Amino acid sequence: MESEQLYQRGYCRNSYNSIASASSDEELLDGAGVIMDFHTTEDDNLLDGDATSPGSNYAMSNGGGAASSSTHLLDFLEEPIPGVGTYDDFHTIDWVREKCKDRERHRKINSKKKESAWEFTKSLYDAWSGWLVVTLTGLASGALAGLIDIAADWMNDLKEGVCLSAMWFNHEQCCWTSNETTFAERDKCPQWKSWAELILGQAEGPGSYIMNYFMYIYWALSFAFLAVCLVKVFAPYACGSGIPEIKTILSGFIIRGYLGKWTLMIKTITLVLAVASGLSLGKEGPLVHVACCCGNIFSYLFPKYSKNEAKKREVTLAAFVLRSINPFGNSRLVLFYVEYHTPWYLFELIPFILLGVFGGLWGAFFIRANIAWCRRRKSTRFGKYPVLEVILVAAITAIVAFPNPYTRQNTSELIKELFTDCGPLETSQLCKYRSQMNGSKAFTDDPNQPAEPGVYSAMWQLCLALIFKIIMTIFTFGLKVPSGLFIPSMAIGAIAGRIVGIAVEQLAYYHHDWFLFKEWCEVGADCITPGLYAMVGAAACLGGVTRMTVSLVVIVFELTGGLEYIVPLMAAVMTSKWVGDAFGREGIYEAHIRLNGYPFLDAKEEFTHTTLAREVMRPRRNDPPLAVLTQDDLTVEELQSVINETSYNGFPVIVSKESQRLVGFALRRDITIAIENARRKQEGILLNSRVYFTQHAPSLPADSPRPLKLRSILDMSPFTVTDHTPMEIVVDIFRKLGLRQCLVTHNGRLLGIITKKDILRHMAQMANQDPESIMFN
Amino acid sequence: MESEQLYQRGYCRNSYNSIASASSDEELLDGAGVIMDFHTTEDDNLLDGDATSPGSNYAMSNGGGAASSSTHLLDFLEEPIPGVGTYDDFHTIDWVREKCKDRERHRKINSKKKESAWEFTKSLYDAWSGWLVVTLTGLASGALAGLIDIAADWMNDLKEGVCLSAMWFNHEQCCWTSNETTFAERDKCPQWKSWAELILGQAEGPGSYIMNYFMYIYWALSFAFLAVCLVKVFAPYACGSGIPEIKTILSGFIIRGYLGKWTLMIKTITLVLAVASGLSLGKEGPLVHVACCCGNIFSYLFPKYSKNEAKKREVTLAAFVLRSINPFGNSRLVLFYVEYHTPWYLFELIPFILLGVFGGLWGAFFIRANIAWCRRRKSTRFGKYPVLEVILVAAITAIVAFPNPYTRQNTSELIKELFTDCGPLETSQLCKYRSQMNGSKAFTDDPNQPAEPGVYSAMWQLCLALIFKIIMTIFTFGLKVPSGLFIPSMAIGAIAGRIVGIAVEQLAYYHHDWFLFKEWCEVGADCITPGLYAMVGAAACLGGVTRMTVSLVVIVFELTGGLEYIVPLMAAVMTSKWVGDAFGREGIYEAHIRLNGYPFLDAKEEFTHTTLAREVMRPRRNDPPLAVLTQDDLTVEELQSVINETSYNGFPVIVSKESQRLVGFALRRDITIAIENARRKQEGILLNSRVYFTQHAPSLPADSPRPLKLRSILDMSPFTVTDHTPMEIVVDIFRKLGLRQCLVTHNGRLLGIITKKDILRHMAQMANQDPESIMFN
Repeated sequence: MESEQLYQRGYCRNSYNSIASASSDEELLDGAGVIMDFHTTEDDNLLDGDATSPGSNYAMSNGGGAASSSTHLLDFLEEPIPGVGTYDDFHTIDWVREKCKDRERHRKINSKKKESAWEFTKSLYDAWSGWLVVTLTGLASGALAGLIDIAADWMNDLKEGVCLSAMWFNHEQCCWTSNETTFAERDKCPQWKSWAELILGQAEGPGSYIMNYFMYIYWALSFAFLAVCLVKVFAPYACGSGIPEIKTILSGFIIRGYLGKWTLMIKTITLVLAVASGLSLGKEGPLVHVACCCGNIFSYLFPKYSKNEAKKREVTLAAFVLRSINPFGNSRLVLFYVEYHTPWYLFELIPFILLGVFGGLWGAFFIRANIAWCRRRKSTRFGKYPVLEVILVAAITAIVAFPNPYTRQNTSELIKELFTDCGPLETSQLCKYRSQMNGSKAFTDDPNQPAEPGVYSAMWQLCLALIFKIIMTIFTFGLKVPSGLFIPSMAIGAIAGRIVGIAVEQLAYYHHDWFLFKEWCEVGADCITPGLYAMVGAAACLGGVTRMTVSLVVIVFELTGGLEYIVPLMAAVMTSKWVGDAFGREGIYEAHIRLNGYPFLDAKEEFTHTTLAREVMRPRRNDPPLAVLTQDDLTVEELQSVINETSYNGFPVIVSKESQRLVGFALRRDITIAIENARRKQEGILLNSRVYFTQHAPSLPADSPRPLKLRSILDMSPFTVTDHTPMEIVVDIFRKLGLRQCLVTHNGRLLGIITKKDILRHMAQMANQDPESIMFN
Repeated sequence: MESEQLYQRGYCRNSYNSIASASSDEELLDGAGVIMDFHTTEDDNLLDGDATSPGSNYAMSNGGGAASSSTHLLDFLEEPIPGVGTYDDFHTIDWVREKCKDRERHRKINSKKKESAWEFTKSLYDAWSGWLVVTLTGLASGALAGLIDIAADWMNDLKEGVCLSAMWFNHEQCCWTSNETTFAERDKCPQWKSWAELILGQAEGPGSYIMNYFMYIYWALSFAFLAVCLVKVFAPYACGSGIPEIKTILSGFIIRGYLGKWTLMIKTITLVLAVASGLSLGKEGPLVHVACCCGNIFSYLFPKYSKNEAKKREVTLAAFVLRSINPFGNSRLVLFYVEYHTPWYLFELIPFILLGVFGGLWGAFFIRANIAWCRRRKSTRFGKYPVLEVILVAAITAIVAFPNPYTRQNTSELIKELFTDCGPLETSQLCKYRSQMNGSKAFTDDPNQPAEPGVYSAMWQLCLALIFKIIMTIFTFGLKVPSGLFIPSMAIGAIAGRIVGIAVEQLAYYHHDWFLFKEWCEVGADCITPGLYAMVGAAACLGGVTRMTVSLVVIVFELTGGLEYIVPLMAAVMTSKWVGDAFGREGIYEAHIRLNGYPFLDAKEEFTHTTLAREVMRPRRNDPPLAVLTQDDLTVEELQSVINETSYNGFPVIVSKESQRLVGFALRRDITIAIENARRKQEGILLNSRVYFTQHAPSLPADSPRPLKLRSILDMSPFTVTDHTPMEIVVDIFRKLGLRQCLVTHNGRLLGIITKKDILRHMAQMANQDPESIMFN
C-alpha cells in the first residue's frame, strides 16, 4: 500500500519525503557543539513514515500536537495533484527527476507483478513496449521513406515529361515496361514523352529545347511554391532539416508540436515537393525528423513513454540512430552501393588528404557563409517574405541547372554516377576514354586511358556544377522548406573528388615513369580509381560540414558498402575535421542551434575558463536579492506575490532568513498548480492561510485559517555546489546529470542559483558572443 | 605570472583558492536576516587575489593586520608541495580533480604558446603526444601479438615433433619449404618428424602412438610448469586474462605494477607457454592486457599522461579498444575470415535462436561454476598450491585431448575448420559426404548431401570435444597462468553450432518436402550452411559469457569479415543475453571483479532500491562521531592525533563545531605530506603551532609559535548531497562524475560522508551479499 501511495505522489524525489519525515531538523539545532547522531529514530520507523510516528519530534518540540494530528488527516486526504511534475513549452526538463520517476514506476510494476496473472502480463507488456515502439517506428518511418522516395522520383521526372502508357510511372519504370528499348539506350523509349514532344510534337530543335526548359522551370516553381505555402500555413516546424532542433530536444528541451502529427504529415508532403523542385537540398536530414516524429507519436501509445519526458527521448533517440545508421539497410537504402576492383596505394593518401583539406575548407566556408546569410535573414526585412525567397531561389536554381546535364539530373543519381568505376557497361560521359571512342578495339580492362574531348568537356561541366552547387547550397539551407544537407554536401565532395581522381589518373598515364607511379602503376595495369576519389571527397565534405568523424565513416560504409577503404576514408575525414576545426569548432547543426538560441549544452565543447560558480550565479552584484521562500512562515498571499513579482522557474526554500540554510527547491509551476488545486478542493484555504513546507504544521493561534501543506511538491534533494567550485566542474555536472538548475552555497548558507541558461549565457560571454542570444529558460 | 603560480599549486581546485580569497565568510555571518550580496569586493580585486588586497576584510574584522601580512610573506614562499595530489596504491582516483588538473595544464600551455617558438613547439608536441603514444602503443602491441603468435605456433607443434631441416620452423612452415608435398597432403612432408619417428624410427603402430602421446604430455606439462613458475616468481599480476583488473583500473583504481614492464615481459613469455601447453585457454584477453601495459609504459614518456591518472587511463582505454575492436585489422588478425556463398533463410532463425538459448545457458552455467570453483580455491587450502593445480589441470587436459583429433589440434584451427563451408578443396572429415566418398562423381555444387559414416564419426568426436571443452574451461579460467576466454568460448559455440548445422542440413535433405524446407530448399540446391551455424553459435557463446551485445557483434564481424549475417548474429546474441540475464545479470568479468572485491561501480547495473543517502552514509547509528577538522583552531599536535587515531582517507573541514557548516575537504595523504614538508622547510613550526585552513591566519597571542597554513591542500568545492537524496541519484552522481567521496548535509549542516566503498558495500548488502567482500578504499 505504501509503495502505491509513493508512486502516486507527483514525482519520486518527493515520494521519499514521507520516508525521511520522522526526524526533523529543528531538533538538531539544539545539539550544538556535538557531532550529530542523526539516527536516533529506529530504522523501522524511518521506513514506515508518517503513519507510524504520529507524535513525532517536530510537533512535540513546537508544542503543537493538535496541528500535527490535523496534518495527518490532510496527509490521508492528499491526492496526487494533477499537472505537478509536467513541463511548460520551451522549458528544459530535469533528467534526474524524470529518470527517478521512471525507476519508481518500474519498482511499482515489479512489486505488483507476482500478485496476479493480469499484473504479470502488464509487466511483460511494459518490458516489451520498448521493443514494440521501436519496431513500429522503424516500420513506419521505413515505409514513409519509401513512399517519399517513389513520389519524389515521379515528380522529379514530371519536370521532364510524362509516361503516356501509365501516368504514375516515372521515366525509368516507364521504359522498363517497354520492349523496344535496348540496354544501351535504356532511358529512351516511345512511351516516355518529353513536354516538347507532347506539346509541340517534336523532340529535337531549339524550339523544343526552350519548351522543355520552360516546363522544367514551371514545374520547379510550382513545387517550390506549394511546399513553402504548405509549411507556412500548416506546420511551421516542418521546415529545415530538423536536426538542430532534434538535438536540442534530445538534450532535454520541450518544443511542443515539433514532433507532432501535423509536422509529420506536412513534412512528408513538402519534402517530396522540395526534393522534386530541384532545389539544392537532400532528404536524409528531414527523413530523420520524420522518423523521430513517428517515434514520438508511437510513444504516446505506451504509458511508459507518454508520461515521461526522458523515456520519450529514448524512443526518439532510437529513431534518430536507426534512421542515421540504418543497420538493417535494405538494398534500396544502400544508396550508392559500389564495388571497386583495385586496391588503393599508399601514395594515393596524398590526394586523399588534399581532398580532406578541401572538405574542411568547404565545411568552414559553408558554415560561415550560411550562418551569415541566415542571420541576415533573421535580422532584416528580407526574412519576412519566405515564400518569395523560396520562389526566387528555386527559379535561379532551375534556370542555371537546366543547361548543365550534371546539375539537371537528380543529385543522388549524379553521386551514383560519380562514385561508379568506369566499366565495360558504363555509358557515362565520364568514361569516354580514347580506347572506347575510336572503336578499333573494344573496352579493355585498363581504365587508365588518355582522356578524350568527351571527358574534358565533362570535366568542364563538372567544374561549373561544383561552383553552382557550392553557391546554391549556401542559400538553400535555411529556406522555409524541408531541406537536408547530406546529399548536396556529398555531391560537392563527389564532384571535387572525381575531378581530382581523373587528374591523378591522367598524371599516372602521362607520367608513368615518375617514382611515385613507377612502383605501383605499370603501364596498362589498373591503378587509379576515380570513383574512389569521389567517395573519399564526399566523406570529406560531409565531415567538414557536420564535424562527425567515426559516425560519419560508419554512415559512408552504410551508404556505399565499401569496407576495404577504411584508411583512405579515415585519413580524409580526420584531415577535414582538423582543417575545419582550425576555423571554428562548431558543425553546421551546432551553429544553427546557436543561431536560434536553443539551450543546448554541447557535450563536445570544452569549457576552459577559470571562472568560479560565484561569478556566474545569480543574483549578480547589483541585482535584487535572490527570491527565496521560508519553510514555515509565509502566507498564501505572500507566496503568490513572490510568484507574481518574479518570473523565475523555481524558488529555493530555506529554514529562515536569518540562517539562510537550504531546505529544498520548489518549482514555480508546481506551486501555482498546488495552490489552485488546494483552493478548489480543500475548504478553509484563505489568502492568509499559512504555507508550510515542513513535515508538520507550525503552531498557530486557534483562530487562524487552515494551513496549506506544500511538502509534497518540495524537492528535498536539490543539487548544490559551493561558490568556490570552478565553472568547468559545474558545466560538467550539468552536462552529465542533465540538471536544470543548481544552488550555490557558501559554508552551508544559500548564496545563489545557477541555471542552464546562466551557464549558456556565461559560455557565450566567454566566447565573446552576445549572451542575450540564448533564449528560452 | 599569476597563471604560472596557479599551475604550480598542487592541483587545480586549490589554485582557485587565491582567487576566491579576497572576501571571507565570517563577514557574512554578521549580515543576518538579509539576502547576502557576496559581490561587494570589486571583480578586479577578486581576480588579482592575495597580492592586491593586503588589508582584506577578514584580517580587518579580526583586527589582525600583523598576522595578515606575515601570511602574505608565507604565500610567496609557498612552493608546490611535492607529492600532494598523488595517490596511494589500491586507492580510487578522483576523476574530477584529475580532469581539472589537466585542463589547468592545458590552459597554461595555451597561454604560453605565443611567447616563443620553443613554447609553440612544446604546445604542438603536447597536442600530438596523444596520437603519438597511441600509435606507438598500437605498433608495439601489434608486434608483440605477432611474436606471441609465431612463438606459440612453433611451441605448439613442438609437442608433435620437430622440423629437421630448420628447427625454428613450425609444422606448416616446414612443409611449405618442401617440394615433395602435394596440396592434398600438405601437412605431411619428410622434413617434419614426429617424436616417434625421431626416437623410435617408425611413424606408425601402437608403439609410436604411445611415444607421441607421451611426448605430447611431456611437453604440455613442461610448458605449463614453466609458465606458472615464471608468473609466481616474477610477476603475480601476469596471471589470468587481466580484463577484470583493467576494467577496474579504467574505472579509476590504482594497482601499481599491474600495467608495468615486469608484468608485460612475464605475461608475454608465459602467454606463449600457456597457449602452447594445450590448456583450454585463449590469448585474446591477455593480449589486451599486453596492449594496455604497452600503453601505460609509453605514456610515461609524455608528461601530459605520466602526471595525470585520468589521462593515463585514456591511453590505456585506447589500447584496450584498439586491441579489442582492432579497426585496422590486417589479414593475420582477421582470424577466421570466411565467405559463404548462400544467403540465409528466414526459417533458419529458429535454429539460430536455439543456438542463442544454448549460448545463454552455457554462459550462465560457466559463470556460476567457474566462480564457485574460484571461490573454493580462494577459501580452502587448495589455493595454496597453484603450481600443483596448473600441472594437474594441464596433465588431465593433455591426456584427454590427445586421442580426439578435434581437441588435440590448436583451438583456433579447430574454430577455423568449423567455420569453413564445405567446398571442393576441403579435406576435412566434416565434409566427407556420400557424393564425395563413392568416387563415381566428383564434388557437386550441392553440399546438402546425405551424411556418411565419416561425418557421423566426426559428429561423435565433436560431441565429446564439446563436453571436454566445457568441463576443462571451467577449471582452467582462474589458474595462475595467463588465460583468455574468447577462444575456448568460441570453440564451444562453434562445435555446438556445427552440430546443429549438420543436423538441420540432414533434416533438409531427408525431409525436403516439409513446408519449411519446401519453400526454400529445392532438391539439389544450396540451402543450409553449417559453417554459418558455427559462427552464430560462437557469437552466442561469447555473448553468454561476456554479456556484451553490440560490441561483440562488431568483434565477430572483425574476426570473420561476414557483414551480411548481421541479423542471424544479432538474433542469437540478443537471445543469448536475455537467457543469460535471466540467471544473473553479471558477465564473467563483472563476476570476477566482485569475487576479488575490486571497487568497481558497474555502469550497467541499475540501482533500484529506495534507500536514502542518510541510511548509507557514515557515521552509522552506533558509530563514533564523524572525524572533522575545524578551520582555524587546531594545533599541529591535535591534527596529527586525529590522523593517527583514524584511518580515513580524508577529513571534512568545518567552520566550527557549533555551526557544523562545511568549508571543504582535506585528504589524509595531503595533510601528512604538508606537515612533514612544513617541518622540514619552514622554521618555527612546532607541535603547538596553530593550523588554519582559512585565507588569513587567526589572531594569536604574541608569543605563540608560527602558524601553519594548509589552505593550499584544502578542496574548497567538495561534492555534497542532502540526507534526503535517494541513493539511486547518489549512485548516478558517483558513476557519472567519478567521485571518490561525497559529503552529506542536512539543512546546510554537515552530517556524514559517503565513499565509493560505502556505496559498493550498500549495493552488496542490497543484493544479499556479504558487504565485507568489498575490499580496498
